[in-house]
Amino acid sequence: MEFMDKDFLLDTEQARILFHKYAEDMPIIDYHCHIDPAEIYEDRSYPSITALWLGGDHYKWRAMRQMGYGEEYVTGNADDRERFKAWCKTLSYAVGSPLYHWSHLELQRYFDCTLPINEKNADEIFDLCNAKLQSGELSARKIIKMSKVKVIGTTDDPCDDLRYHKLMREDKSLDCKVIPTFRPDRLLLIGEQSFPAYVKSLGKAAGRDITDISSLKAALTERMDFFAAMGARSSDQSTAFFPCTRLTADELEEVFLKGMDRQALTERERLGFITEIMLFLGGEYKRLGWVMQLHFGVARNTNSRMFEQVGKDTGFDRIDSNAPIETLATFLNELDKTDSLPKTVLYSLDPSMNAPLDVLAKCFNEAGVRGKVQHGAAWWFNDNIGGMTDHLRSLCEQGVLGTFIGMLTDSRCMLSYTRHEYFRRILCRFIGRLAEDGQLYFDEQLLGGLVQDVSYTNAERFFSL
Amino acid sequence: MEFMDKDFLLDTEQARILFHKYAEDMPIIDYHCHIDPAEIYEDRSYPSITALWLGGDHYKWRAMRQMGYGEEYVTGNADDRERFKAWCKTLSYAVGSPLYHWSHLELQRYFDCTLPINEKNADEIFDLCNAKLQSGELSARKIIKMSKVKVIGTTDDPCDDLRYHKLMREDKSLDCKVIPTFRPDRLLLIGEQSFPAYVKSLGKAAGRDITDISSLKAALTERMDFFAAMGARSSDQSTAFFPCTRLTADELEEVFLKGMDRQALTERERLGFITEIMLFLGGEYKRLGWVMQLHFGVARNTNSRMFEQVGKDTGFDRIDSNAPIETLATFLNELDKTDSLPKTVLYSLDPSMNAPLDVLAKCFNEAGVRGKVQHGAAWWFNDNIGGMTDHLRSLCEQGVLGTFIGMLTDSRCMLSYTRHEYFRRILCRFIGRLAEDGQLYFDEQLLGGLVQDVSYTNAERFFSL
Amino acid sequence: MEFMDKDFLLDTEQARILFHKYAEDMPIIDYHCHIDPAEIYEDRSYPSITALWLGGDHYKWRAMRQMGYGEEYVTGNADDRERFKAWCKTLSYAVGSPLYHWSHLELQRYFDCTLPINEKNADEIFDLCNAKLQSGELSARKIIKMSKVKVIGTTDDPCDDLRYHKLMREDKSLDCKVIPTFRPDRLLLIGEQSFPAYVKSLGKAAGRDITDISSLKAALTERMDFFAAMGARSSDQSTAFFPCTRLTADELEEVFLKGMDRQALTERERLGFITEIMLFLGGEYKRLGWVMQLHFGVARNTNSRMFEQVGKDTGFDRIDSNAPIETLATFLNELDKTDSLPKTVLYSLDPSMNAPLDVLAKCFNEAGVRGKVQHGAAWWFNDNIGGMTDHLRSLCEQGVLGTFIGMLTDSRCMLSYTRHEYFRRILCRFIGRLAEDGQLYFDEQLLGGLVQDVSYTNAERFFSL
Repeated sequence: MEFMDKDFLLDTEQARILFHKYAEDMPIIDYHCHIDPAEIYEDRSYPSITALWLGGDHYKWRAMRQMGYGEEYVTGNADDRERFKAWCKTLSYAVGSPLYHWSHLELQRYFDCTLPINEKNADEIFDLCNAKLQSGELSARKIIKMSKVKVIGTTDDPCDDLRYHKLMREDKSLDCKVIPTFRPDRLLLIGEQSFPAYVKSLGKAAGRDITDISSLKAALTERMDFFAAMGARSSDQSTAFFPCTRLTADELEEVFLKGMDRQALTERERLGFITEIMLFLGGEYKRLGWVMQLHFGVARNTNSRMFEQVGKDTGFDRIDSNAPIETLATFLNELDKTDSLPKTVLYSLDPSMNAPLDVLAKCFNEAGVRGKVQHGAAWWFNDNIGGMTDHLRSLCEQGVLGTFIGMLTDSRCMLSYTRHEYFRRILCRFIGRLAEDGQLYFDEQLLGGLVQDVSYTNAERFFSL
Repeated sequence: MEFMDKDFLLDTEQARILFHKYAEDMPIIDYHCHIDPAEIYEDRSYPSITALWLGGDHYKWRAMRQMGYGEEYVTGNADDRERFKAWCKTLSYAVGSPLYHWSHLELQRYFDCTLPINEKNADEIFDLCNAKLQSGELSARKIIKMSKVKVIGTTDDPCDDLRYHKLMREDKSLDCKVIPTFRPDRLLLIGEQSFPAYVKSLGKAAGRDITDISSLKAALTERMDFFAAMGARSSDQSTAFFPCTRLTADELEEVFLKGMDRQALTERERLGFITEIMLFLGGEYKRLGWVMQLHFGVARNTNSRMFEQVGKDTGFDRIDSNAPIETLATFLNELDKTDSLPKTVLYSLDPSMNAPLDVLAKCFNEAGVRGKVQHGAAWWFNDNIGGMTDHLRSLCEQGVLGTFIGMLTDSRCMLSYTRHEYFRRILCRFIGRLAEDGQLYFDEQLLGGLVQDVSYTNAERFFSL
Repeated sequence: MEFMDKDFLLDTEQARILFHKYAEDMPIIDYHCHIDPAEIYEDRSYPSITALWLGGDHYKWRAMRQMGYGEEYVTGNADDRERFKAWCKTLSYAVGSPLYHWSHLELQRYFDCTLPINEKNADEIFDLCNAKLQSGELSARKIIKMSKVKVIGTTDDPCDDLRYHKLMREDKSLDCKVIPTFRPDRLLLIGEQSFPAYVKSLGKAAGRDITDISSLKAALTERMDFFAAMGARSSDQSTAFFPCTRLTADELEEVFLKGMDRQALTERERLGFITEIMLFLGGEYKRLGWVMQLHFGVARNTNSRMFEQVGKDTGFDRIDSNAPIETLATFLNELDKTDSLPKTVLYSLDPSMNAPLDVLAKCFNEAGVRGKVQHGAAWWFNDNIGGMTDHLRSLCEQGVLGTFIGMLTDSRCMLSYTRHEYFRRILCRFIGRLAEDGQLYFDEQLLGGLVQDVSYTNAERFFSL
């Protein structure tokens, strides 16, 4: 097969039919990302390919550091062209890396450039990309339009005023929905110094004093209703564990007051508060018809020297090898047994947990809902051909592939929509190989529909868009 | 390749030779299943394909619930035809699922129907299957004969009178051995309310009063000898863990009496009793030349709401992600060091444990025995092409493939014998690919013999049939 | 493809180009093995193929035991020819085993014999190999020369006088560097009876009395400097865990004295001492520019009956399913934050840890060093086509393949250099498939260079040879 041409990854006739006739032209629902809504509202442009590619991408930073480049090239102030060349050289050593495919796909789709990325071509690519960026053809809204993105789910703090979301709801010129996602992670940091101030902000945002558990819940409900009014269809929580420590109502009040007073908490007290809030939130999501997204299995800031130097989210997080599958089972059951379990997406990082997680997910169902508890798309360190293929295989072996809600970018960068294309190619390759191998009856209409469901329609239905 | 034709999964010339010349016509030893012996003795017939397929199969139920079908379609009383259609629709979404292949294989082999299963064909298949079932061509014994099953190992409580096994031993018209398997799980539930009554039943079955550890052991020995006389060649135990808590003889007597008196036990007491009994049983199995089958790595009844609604074994069990490999090592060594380790089959659920488990198994051997401690065939959530291929790969990498005792159905349904065919195709595909790739010298006679060993002969020898 | 011919495993045109033009003729740096340096210095010959193949290879012993052979054939005194035949028969059942390929590669490369190994050919192969061995063509130094080995890193105790290394440094007739590796495992056995005697030997070797922590460290430094003078470029440690228990200086002195006095230690004391020494050693390795090799994830001597009968390192070790990834992260960070982290190679045994380990490794970097913390080549139970391919895949998905330092034998046997060829074939197959599939731009010069880097040059640079 030719290098990354129109049939990239489509190694059977069936895959080519499924992709080109059914998947390729479907619009995109990017239900979880980290794009700044202001960037879209203001239709920002990008000064250079170095800024766009190396400005905030910790995946790329990790690779460059591994090649031995100093921080001045990675996150620092070295010359734009030199940093870009360092990146191109890194990429040519990164055989089989998802970064290799992501970068080439972005170059092909947004910059009409089919050159292989390497040191030799670095200057030409640098100039060509920057010319395109300076021409104005690649502003945020233009990229969204080119990419056929219909919905973007941003990630937002409960205290956020969602100003840009509001403005975009009223902006007729934007033909993409930009909706907020409720991310209450900071509320769970009881016991930390920042807790009382955060609760105060939350009260201010909700327009009410928070003095106890009950007013705290009322404030959260107010904020969720506001998010819902601004189009939110889901929450997202990042958690290292799933506590199931039940305290009495009196204990909870006491723990809350201690937290507000910055007093030391026992582990039981801390977990008891988190348990109460997580179960309350789950029930509220269910009430609102929202999807509960849970990200877990990350150990953060492994390298303390670099944390002090360059801060968080810079490429020093890793896979927690003790993923909390057993307590997750208890947590889901706690919600389910009181009919408070919302539609849920579970994102785990350790690929050896695929099978246990898929089997667990399918223990919770609801009449009328396809795939109520989802094993979310292969995430972060699994977001590559191998990881996605293993994920699809696990879905198939333990469940019903046709119910899967498919891909998201989880990205900070506008060019990442090509990851939906990458996923769809992998999906069609996967199904095409089953058919070519005689394992699957090739009913084109049925499988074409399934590919469209997984690429787009299932997410639209799951998030009630 | 054509869809599931005679060369299904046989993607090399070598695989086709090995399967069609050597594996296809070998009889079947189904050494572990959950078929009711009365069903065979009485040569039962089946009223409808809905009853046969959806009557007791929690694999299928899980898939249907995931599609959003309510319990009336899954385990309930919806119309037979409608339930069947719901199943066919589910299956057409279940791309890459083992259910997809199992169902098509059963349809092809027992109903002579090569239609792909989907909503469109549902009515035709429903009518065709039911006509065949009503014709009387597919009674239990006829299915066994068609499937060339030579031995069936059922699963039986030590208190069971094995009435049907006895009758079948005397029934010259049955050309298949139906042998019991000793399953003492309920005896290990000391500390539960049911314990004293169970011990009483056991005493009654053994014809002796059980008043202490020594009479308990004597009763177990009596039952094992009776099972052996009825043809038993193995035990089977399902366990969440492998305790190695040793108590003194006096402590054990006290714990037993407390258990009989329904007094609360400490964890140490409970584990001490279980340890004593499991080690005693292991030694007895060794004495009898039996095989000890150990199933572990399951977390049961994850969904408590559904447990109350539809009970156990209905599709809400899952993979325990903390498989007890380390304590299993200690347990096997405890038996081995007193020369009490019987031939053993280890079935684990978490596929990420394949390598540690295979390596552990090969630490215990006996002169004159091929593959004394086996990593049992890919089980339950691993019983699919990917799971079986990973299992074979692990066997090859860590041991000697030619010593493997091969497949079993572990099923409650008579049509499941096609899973032996499925396994043999996967085995021949696996070996064929090695040969085609130049990794293996294709000595047809040697490899044909190996395929027959793994398909049939090794199990015959291992279980001393 | 033909059975193990010149294109063995090279299933694409790209793989054949990369292997035959770039990898095949590169010399070998075998930076970690267990060869006795005297064997090389004295240019030993080998009496028979049975001695050479079955004299010390616990991989082969495991396979033979699994086939049911008694110890007299495995490690015992059965007739040489009969033992060899038993091995040949075992191998013909070991379809897909790395032993199958290793044995055939050794037969082809060193004995010019392309016969498939099986019972039928056993006599002919036995006679042919023994004739070759007796002809003198296959002495230790001749094998090294034939194999183009440029550097051999042996494994040596800190107390060792490195007599043979010294002699070989002065021996102009040897065109291979044989360098020692510092293996301080025995020093960490504080609390065991052997500890005081070991410390005494260490003091003697270093020419100083060891009476406290400070003189212990001085003695270690002296030994490391001596090893460095004898050419050492790395240490190697085998550890079950990574302790991070920090004691005060006073506590450490007390613990050391208790250890020297054979007094009982608490777990905290024992771990505190080990932590101190491991961090001290790490810093010293960094000072010397050495590489720190860490082997972990093994559970040893699983079968106590066989341990008593045949001792350690005889085939009864296994994979620890609780690999200490989380404490390893803390350990690496402890060194890194004081700028004491040397270049490091992490060898883990549990393949389900590949992804967490690769991600962890890439959290530690240094400007100017390519791949500072390496996930070492697939080790022991992973040293096979599947294991190496999974390892390469994990490297690619989580990092930059081109920085990998490649293969080592970890062997006790001179014929094992073919494992470098095996690895290079697997590497070229892996890259060739990516290119053939259109996933990788086939820039022959760039990829040829990368293959040479991973086969040879990266190790040369990493170990500063």
